[in-house]
Amino acid sequence: MTVRVGLLGAGTVGAGTFAVLARNADEIARRAGRAIQIVRIADLDLDRAARVADGRAEVTTDASAIVDAPDIDVVVELIGGYDIARTLVMRAIAAGKHVVTANKALLAVHGNAIFAAAHERGVMVAFEAAVAGGIPIIKALREGLAANRIEWIAGIINGTTNFILSEMRSRGLPFAEVLAQAQQLGYAEADPTFDIDGIDAAHKATIMAAIAFGTPMRFESAHIEGIRHLDAKDIRFAEQLGYRIKLLGIARRRERNGLPLGFELRVHPTLIPSSRLLASVEGAMNAVWVHGDAVGHTMFYGKGAGAEPTASAVVADLVDVTRTLTADPDHRVPHLAFQPDALSDLPVLPIGDIESGYYLRMAVADQPGVLADVTRIVAQRGISIGSVLQPEPGAGENSTDVVLLTHRALERDVDEAIAAIEALPTVLGPVVRLRMEDLS
Amino acid sequence: MTVRVGLLGAGTVGAGTFAVLARNADEIARRAGRAIQIVRIADLDLDRAARVADGRAEVTTDASAIVDAPDIDVVVELIGGYDIARTLVMRAIAAGKHVVTANKALLAVHGNAIFAAAHERGVMVAFEAAVAGGIPIIKALREGLAANRIEWIAGIINGTTNFILSEMRSRGLPFAEVLAQAQQLGYAEADPTFDIDGIDAAHKATIMAAIAFGTPMRFESAHIEGIRHLDAKDIRFAEQLGYRIKLLGIARRRERNGLPLGFELRVHPTLIPSSRLLASVEGAMNAVWVHGDAVGHTMFYGKGAGAEPTASAVVADLVDVTRTLTADPDHRVPHLAFQPDALSDLPVLPIGDIESGYYLRMAVADQPGVLADVTRIVAQRGISIGSVLQPEPGAGENSTDVVLLTHRALERDVDEAIAAIEALPTVLGPVVRLRMEDLS
Repeated sequence: MTVRVGLLGAGTVGAGTFAVLARNADEIARRAGRAIQIVRIADLDLDRAARVADGRAEVTTDASAIVDAPDIDVVVELIGGYDIARTLVMRAIAAGKHVVTANKALLAVHGNAIFAAAHERGVMVAFEAAVAGGIPIIKALREGLAANRIEWIAGIINGTTNFILSEMRSRGLPFAEVLAQAQQLGYAEADPTFDIDGIDAAHKATIMAAIAFGTPMRFESAHIEGIRHLDAKDIRFAEQLGYRIKLLGIARRRERNGLPLGFELRVHPTLIPSSRLLASVEGAMNAVWVHGDAVGHTMFYGKGAGAEPTASAVVADLVDVTRTLTADPDHRVPHLAFQPDALSDLPVLPIGDIESGYYLRMAVADQPGVLADVTRIVAQRGISIGSVLQPEPGAGENSTDVVLLTHRALERDVDEAIAAIEALPTVLGPVVRLRMEDLS
Repeated sequence: MTVRVGLLGAGTVGAGTFAVLARNADEIARRAGRAIQIVRIADLDLDRAARVADGRAEVTTDASAIVDAPDIDVVVELIGGYDIARTLVMRAIAAGKHVVTANKALLAVHGNAIFAAAHERGVMVAFEAAVAGGIPIIKALREGLAANRIEWIAGIINGTTNFILSEMRSRGLPFAEVLAQAQQLGYAEADPTFDIDGIDAAHKATIMAAIAFGTPMRFESAHIEGIRHLDAKDIRFAEQLGYRIKLLGIARRRERNGLPLGFELRVHPTLIPSSRLLASVEGAMNAVWVHGDAVGHTMFYGKGAGAEPTASAVVADLVDVTRTLTADPDHRVPHLAFQPDALSDLPVLPIGDIESGYYLRMAVADQPGVLADVTRIVAQRGISIGSVLQPEPGAGENSTDVVLLTHRALERDVDEAIAAIEALPTVLGPVVRLRMEDLS
């Protein structure tokens, strides 16, 4: 009666999954009601697979020997990437296997096709490990908060960028220097693009938005900005104003006159008040803030990456799958939280239509009347200003920085105001624009 | 195909449950695959029931007309208390109804009998709302973290006491004054015993320990201390030392030489480092810190009480129950996370056998050698000291306070040291002893 699992990928998370399942085999079986065992491991590097298996599982370089094998009940996909993983997952589904995956890129981009195929074939595709590592946020959104109309989500869901931002703030260093250190420490990859440009966070935000709002995956419509161009100066000014800058993945419903308008789906550096719990999430930790209409604010915190935290989520999915392995599909939790025939076609709003607070920084000539000109331009567009910071110019300098914090405004209006501000002869160079959320 | 629910109790949470289920009926049905409707409400106060129902459900004063009714699928018990609730829940189970309850007192004290009856009869008893209101902590411990050997849990799980402690600290007021204000504001009940003496928190800690460690409910063995005797002076000294005092519910596994020894189950005021996220949980909010061997540290935060946050959990349970209503019981998640035939007989350790850090405050005569005597007594018992605080005596005073923080030690040894310290002629009056956890 043992559930037989085939593992694709013997890298860090694959090794962690094998280790956790072996070490906690007894407790896991006491929970699941059946033993769960990885019986076969596929990896192109056979030695690596053999080191993980250590004689306790068959090893192969041929992943198809797992996805097609009649003696395998569940396939765990930990290869990552789009193409090969997609082919293997689709073959596993076609062969009637349940699938557990940690692959956010795959689900954000090809999830709609994968879930349709899984529904058709009557198998489960579980993906707790795809978002925020060991934090059971998928289960929380899909089941624990199922009573709620989920209004919005804001998550620190990429550990690499949070580590870099924490170091930039606490040590006052520029981005490039901290990135180089993070790469040396193994916190950032040799090619850090996916992390620092916000793509990884956007994959995860896409998945959370789908299960929160009951829509298909809409990664192609996400607005994505990373932290590559973030100036240490803005972190410092934000701190003086009582804010910290975090790379947030945000999904928020919007209505007009009580009718659904769409939802915002965006990843970007964001000012949040230093007093908020989310602002205190430092280093490589992850946290997701969720607001539901009944529950109010909630927050889920933990390690977002690493071998065993991610394995914790993979194995929790294996336990879930085990429990309903032989149940009628109607008794299972739907993949995307909502029944597949009840998904909504709520669109993602274009970035110009989002609402946010804004941080605007500009260099201005040190002469009377500049601030009055700038604030008039902002006020004319119906945007109200919360705070202004204008440090004294240094000795011998004839320009200074001005920082404005606005209340919530439509981004399109803010863009117009910025264009008008940049046209002022007393404003020197482009305006730096960051978004701000007060999480209330 | 609508799931027909009978509601027992039309108080705050009952009204919230009816409201959430009605307001979000569409989204909930899209998630659950079936509509869920409260069709009958029982309350001794028929007017109150009628106000909640507002013509959309039958009302009755006779709860047995719900628990025995053949047309009811699920009974929601929101009456609270031990005796009547127990009788009704057992009758509902005997009649083959599934039960959803928010009643922590009932489960902590009578849970073992209730779950045995439910298992026997093949029905579900769901209780997410019993711990930490809207935070889906039961589901996280039972399912989301199912891969882990859960090592320990520390929770701020009583909003009334957390509100009182937050106010005592931020405003420097004594316990009695803040309690009186909390009662005026409705944050504390007219008879606040269950909250301030730690009994409510102990009920919740008991339930979390059972599902984390796979044991029966062991409320009778819990060690319980409330905040009634907490001196504002100790909150101030703790803050000077870098700590905040929270009423924590703690459940921790203990081993010796790799063999299970038992677990600690205790509720008491606890010093935690101010830098920890848990220390920043203020006012009536709840948060539960969980350490699992694979996932590491995690934290779950949100509103622990109130009509709609609690309703969020009740309705999430209704969705869960709906999904597996007609499934074979083998396909369901076991009530206590572990299969009923796989529970452990791990005992609760007596309080003398717990390990903790300690805060010891004593008034001493202002003369040389006192601190040396005290620290020698502590060191002789193998207890090491982390910090010492000894404020200068006020003008004209001839005694002063001494505060010691110890590293982790066995409580029995600390008690012995306290007895020896109190026997010193230079130590004036009893030693104040608080426990301390660094959450690392």
